[in-house]
Amino acid sequence: MADYRELWKSLDMDLEKHDKLCEVLPEFYEDVYLSQKNRPEGMNYYNFVISEVHGLRIKELDDHKQNGGKVLGTFCVFVPDEIIFSADAIGVGLCGGSDFWVPDGEKVLPRNICPLIKASVGAKISGTCPYFQSADMLVGETTCDGKKKAWEILNDYTPIHVMDLPQMKRENDKKHWKDEIKLFMDKVEELTGNKITEERLNNAIKLINRKRRVLQRLYNTRKADKLPISGKDALLITQIAFYDDLERFIQKTEELCDELERRIEKGVGVFPENTPRILVTGTPMAIPNWKIHHLIETSGGSVVCEETCTGTRYFENTVKENNKTLDEQIDALTDRYLNINCACFTPNEGRIDDIIRLYKEYNADGVIYNTLSFCHTYSVEYKKVKEALDKEGIPVMMIESDYSLQDSGQIKTRLEAFFEMLKERKSAYAK
Amino acid sequence: MADYRELWKSLDMDLEKHDKLCEVLPEFYEDVYLSQKNRPEGMNYYNFVISEVHGLRIKELDDHKQNGGKVLGTFCVFVPDEIIFSADAIGVGLCGGSDFWVPDGEKVLPRNICPLIKASVGAKISGTCPYFQSADMLVGETTCDGKKKAWEILNDYTPIHVMDLPQMKRENDKKHWKDEIKLFMDKVEELTGNKITEERLNNAIKLINRKRRVLQRLYNTRKADKLPISGKDALLITQIAFYDDLERFIQKTEELCDELERRIEKGVGVFPENTPRILVTGTPMAIPNWKIHHLIETSGGSVVCEETCTGTRYFENTVKENNKTLDEQIDALTDRYLNINCACFTPNEGRIDDIIRLYKEYNADGVIYNTLSFCHTYSVEYKKVKEALDKEGIPVMMIESDYSLQDSGQIKTRLEAFFEMLKERKSAYAK
Ligand code: SF4
Ligand code: SF4
Ligand code: SF4
Ligand code: SF4
Repeated sequence: MADYRELWKSLDMDLEKHDKLCEVLPEFYEDVYLSQKNRPEGMNYYNFVISEVHGLRIKELDDHKQNGGKVLGTFCVFVPDEIIFSADAIGVGLCGGSDFWVPDGEKVLPRNICPLIKASVGAKISGTCPYFQSADMLVGETTCDGKKKAWEILNDYTPIHVMDLPQMKRENDKKHWKDEIKLFMDKVEELTGNKITEERLNNAIKLINRKRRVLQRLYNTRKADKLPISGKDALLITQIAFYDDLERFIQKTEELCDELERRIEKGVGVFPENTPRILVTGTPMAIPNWKIHHLIETSGGSVVCEETCTGTRYFENTVKENNKTLDEQIDALTDRYLNINCACFTPNEGRIDDIIRLYKEYNADGVIYNTLSFCHTYSVEYKKVKEALDKEGIPVMMIESDYSLQDSGQIKTRLEAFFEMLKERKSAYAK
Repeated sequence: MADYRELWKSLDMDLEKHDKLCEVLPEFYEDVYLSQKNRPEGMNYYNFVISEVHGLRIKELDDHKQNGGKVLGTFCVFVPDEIIFSADAIGVGLCGGSDFWVPDGEKVLPRNICPLIKASVGAKISGTCPYFQSADMLVGETTCDGKKKAWEILNDYTPIHVMDLPQMKRENDKKHWKDEIKLFMDKVEELTGNKITEERLNNAIKLINRKRRVLQRLYNTRKADKLPISGKDALLITQIAFYDDLERFIQKTEELCDELERRIEKGVGVFPENTPRILVTGTPMAIPNWKIHHLIETSGGSVVCEETCTGTRYFENTVKENNKTLDEQIDALTDRYLNINCACFTPNEGRIDDIIRLYKEYNADGVIYNTLSFCHTYSVEYKKVKEALDKEGIPVMMIESDYSLQDSGQIKTRLEAFFEMLKERKSAYAK
């Protein structure tokens, strides 16, 4: 990747520190990903994307900027990408998923805060993430306490626009969210100098819906009896969807889906028969946080679906297309986004329905409720989810962890016991 | 207090468990409060209130209910008491301040959540707090993640109305908060069956302003060179203001202020000369959480002011009086309440100004920034406050702790060192 040093320099990066990051990532990726057996051919594209994660894509963003375009960094699936793309800007998801950034985050944030926030802030202030460095503006939101307050600190390093997400979903709150989308539109128009017209917004809505549909197609293949793709690989694809070039991503993922569907026809699977099928639900897994999926799939389980923001919450609902006026388009965006069931809302009953529905749709055997450490909204919400799943007779296990690997052994032991239980349960039912 | 057993029974309390609570409180109060030297005579009233905390006041609430009145429990200084009182209901602040309730809270909440939330929920589900048991409805708010999600759990035990507090303070957010106040009004009218008229609301505004003014008068006496009252006692009075009968509280506190002002004239103080004067800033201290004040005042310091919700944030701004229409009154309420500078807002620059202003007004020597464990908003905000205070040359020390007394020794050691430093600093300046 030596060719990119000049580019990184121009982005005001800490090259020495960045070198250290570049040293650890490839080996980690090899361990977690390339070691998998019988991977689909189509995964080569995503291998390539990862190998160029700080290279080619950064070059593309730079080219875009050289041509007068803007880059916006986001941290939450509530921020409407359609607005960004319709102003000819590029949106990239910036949530930090690496332990590498946590110590730098802890220089300015309390330690007992969610690692995603610490890593995101650390990525910026350490100057080692070229995506952060490429962003002309960050977009924050008032979803959780930690993020809400972290924006104030990030703002010392880079401009940030904060969207006030309502914390409830009544009729009034829809209006409130619509107002926020309009304010965001103004801000993006101001930053880019581009007017968001009806036509441009319609095109952006259609484009991003296409991304959502190909992810839906991908996830549908995971409903098959024999899983044509590992959970780890599916997670990687969703993570890449947050920052890759849209058209290329859609095309490559359609190709992968062709392959996966052929696999299903032929009955080719990547896991042994009777591998317990797990629905993972909880907090987002930002790239390169593959910890829980890796632990599950090396402890005798397989992940069939993620009810997370790096899973179904990202792509499940599409935006209504072909609206007549800008106002109707914004209404359509408001509706689509406020349909996401994040624990930052109170109440958040819809999430329980989603979990039960997905459990059934993906023919899962059990649920793993995963939260990042110190994430209050998801950890408090566990009680309600657990009660509902108990009522449905759905087995669930809670894992709270951060980005460090210290608790891996202990989690593995718990997972193995959980999977044993699921297998026994299944064979008991089969009788 | 044996006379109240029938009353407690009628409130569906766990009498056995409640007995245990009643066993510990008096001794604790004696240690912390009655041991103080040279207390103002007027403190006898508050001693009496505490001795009757689960007795007389509960009887008064019960009488009110027998006469068809309602009782509402609140958890945040953003909930406008004026609305409650103008519908002839009584509002009582319910934040839990005792470690006694934490284990019951931890039965339904994660352990790594703020003790105020755990104690509040624990107080309800253990059936040992007669105030919770007296409340016909609780009023929650979407201020912090922990509380926002805890309401969902409390709702399984008792009805709760949640107000969606905006997380920012732009023009739009004022409208949003005004709408919330109106929704709250509707709810209170529905619950009480009483119409909130212009006249009633004006009276309630005036009454609660009177409470604010007497607290302002009390706090003004703490600006004196020789402190006529300890910080601990002042804190107790503010805590009692949250649930005591308004007229009686105002009268008794005016009487106390008369005494304190006489003390100032005569130069009577409760601390030795040169005792460092401390401004405490941070999270609320719910009754009976006297931990930090007690530690400060038994380690060689004195508390002169609290920039907290059980301090200045509770009473500093009054509501504009004599508005012509109901709509104007609601505007006045909106303005007054959105002027409170809580860390749950982003940004929250106003709080920094408040801290610096209060430091000067109260002639403080240093600031103690106190947060309850796992309170993300206040702990993240520390960085900005610290930077601003450093710039002003104001010494500050951060203490994060919960309700347990395990860390008392360690905090004491840190406090003593801090006070030593403040004294040296002062005598260096004097030269
Ligand atoms: S979990 Fe909630 S706050 Fe976090 S990215 Fe998802 S929607 Fe946003
Ligand atoms: S995982 Fe939880 S605490 Fe962390 S950023 Fe998301 S919502 Fe906030
Ligand atoms: S600290 Fe904030 S959330 Fe807590 S009582 Fe005060 S205003 Fe309300
Ligand atoms: S102290 Fe902090 S975490 Fe606890 S209730 Fe208040 S704002 Fe929430």
